[in-house]
Amino acid sequence: MFKRDPFSETLGLIAGKGEFPIIFAEALFALKQPLIVFGVKGQTDPRVEPFAKETHYMDLGALGHLVDLLKKTKVKKVVLAGGIPKFEIYNPSFQMDETAKGFIHQTRNKGDDHILKALQFFLKVKCGVSIADARVFLKNLLAPKGVMTRRIPTPSEREDLKFGWRIAKGIGKMDIGQTVVVKDGVVLAVEALEGTDAAIRRGGKLSRTGAVIVKVAKPNQDLRFDLPCVGHETLESMKAVGARVIGVETQKTVMLSKDRLIEEADQADMSILGI
Amino acid sequence: MFKRDPFSETLGLIAGKGEFPIIFAEALFALKQPLIVFGVKGQTDPRVEPFAKETHYMDLGALGHLVDLLKKTKVKKVVLAGGIPKFEIYNPSFQMDETAKGFIHQTRNKGDDHILKALQFFLKVKCGVSIADARVFLKNLLAPKGVMTRRIPTPSEREDLKFGWRIAKGIGKMDIGQTVVVKDGVVLAVEALEGTDAAIRRGGKLSRTGAVIVKVAKPNQDLRFDLPCVGHETLESMKAVGARVIGVETQKTVMLSKDRLIEEADQADMSILGI
Repeated sequence: MFKRDPFSETLGLIAGKGEFPIIFAEALFALKQPLIVFGVKGQTDPRVEPFAKETHYMDLGALGHLVDLLKKTKVKKVVLAGGIPKFEIYNPSFQMDETAKGFIHQTRNKGDDHILKALQFFLKVKCGVSIADARVFLKNLLAPKGVMTRRIPTPSEREDLKFGWRIAKGIGKMDIGQTVVVKDGVVLAVEALEGTDAAIRRGGKLSRTGAVIVKVAKPNQDLRFDLPCVGHETLESMKAVGARVIGVETQKTVMLSKDRLIEEADQADMSILGI
Repeated sequence: MFKRDPFSETLGLIAGKGEFPIIFAEALFALKQPLIVFGVKGQTDPRVEPFAKETHYMDLGALGHLVDLLKKTKVKKVVLAGGIPKFEIYNPSFQMDETAKGFIHQTRNKGDDHILKALQFFLKVKCGVSIADARVFLKNLLAPKGVMTRRIPTPSEREDLKFGWRIAKGIGKMDIGQTVVVKDGVVLAVEALEGTDAAIRRGGKLSRTGAVIVKVAKPNQDLRFDLPCVGHETLESMKAVGARVIGVETQKTVMLSKDRLIEEADQADMSILGI
């Protein structure tokens, strides 16, 4: 008997808001995993489409439509990625089909874990579909502990990595962002809504050279649906401002095209490390 | 007998690093206070000069030179503004004149308050000069409590002011910066090294319109030498991105050309308030 390979059959991706569905789909595309995306109209970013075999969109309250689509496409396993605006769903004026109304009615406890469990049960019973944690499919792309590159950080860069880690966790706790740019114990830039690349470029420019980047998961980030991510664009932003060191959170950061990314860092004499 | 008017005689400004000496000099210039600046070579920003009757520069370790300058210019009262890199002064390889060596030798306790007291005593004895708190000269320009403008913030803007206050104090505690830009409970931008105006423009652009700015003192900020400041440029940055509300910390924020600033805000239908 063989253990079933999670990559052997077409996977469903129920895609909510934000970047993560795109990152997830891109990562699985690179791993040659066939993917069918079930998007939500007005929520899912269509940039997910190039990485999917098919993309279907449904209204936010149309759970019956999702059930039909899952049956029709014969997907047996799905991953949820990206946020769904819960406050809208639990708004009494929200438009739902009968299936959604029944589901909402049955989930009295509105905590995320309870909703997820209820949905897991619902999908299993209704269409034999199971929900998997996104991380199962990204295992090989999660940042390992320690230095991944040939270049190791200097002692003063290590000090800045420690300092940046403390600041990044602090802003994460306040739900501001995931990324900070530091140098010699000074915070050059803090990421808020503008995104990682803009923060790197801004902070890096202020440092002229020698900026150290730290990217971590927010303490309250739900890693089942949402993971920090670094990729080619991150390194490009760093190169543009002469930054050579990035620390990411071990086992909680997706490295897009990981092997190629480390190679690219090596060619540019940069350091990537998991902390 | 009359109380002596602090504005009646020429004031000395011992100007360290950063923006505050410029802000202080500009504020006193607007109040028609004659000012002689004693700057430190390589530390003091020369943009302070237009607001001073005279500017003299000395080397960082040349305390004897400062004593001579104070005597020559007959200044009797000085304000200290802007930081002095203490770690350099207490570095054994640091170049000092004999006067500075004597002073450093006598101040065993290196806490800021002790150094300030020691310097106060030293200047009084050596040249009859007394040191005043910068705030004494800025009293009329410090932000009062409450709404200063005709336009009062809407209830949702008030929520954002409260939210922004909490975030701004949080980043201040980590010594990151003083200013945040928020909207609907989301942090759009956090100021680090780039400065208030850049943070306002960045966050404001992301909001399209309706961004709320909060600027506060850092919990560890030494208000004797360094105060948060808002002025015409702050409002210009807000106008450029359609932001209409700014909350500043009551009694701890210098409002440059305060009356004109409030008038300008009124003309643009903006709200300024002290919180």
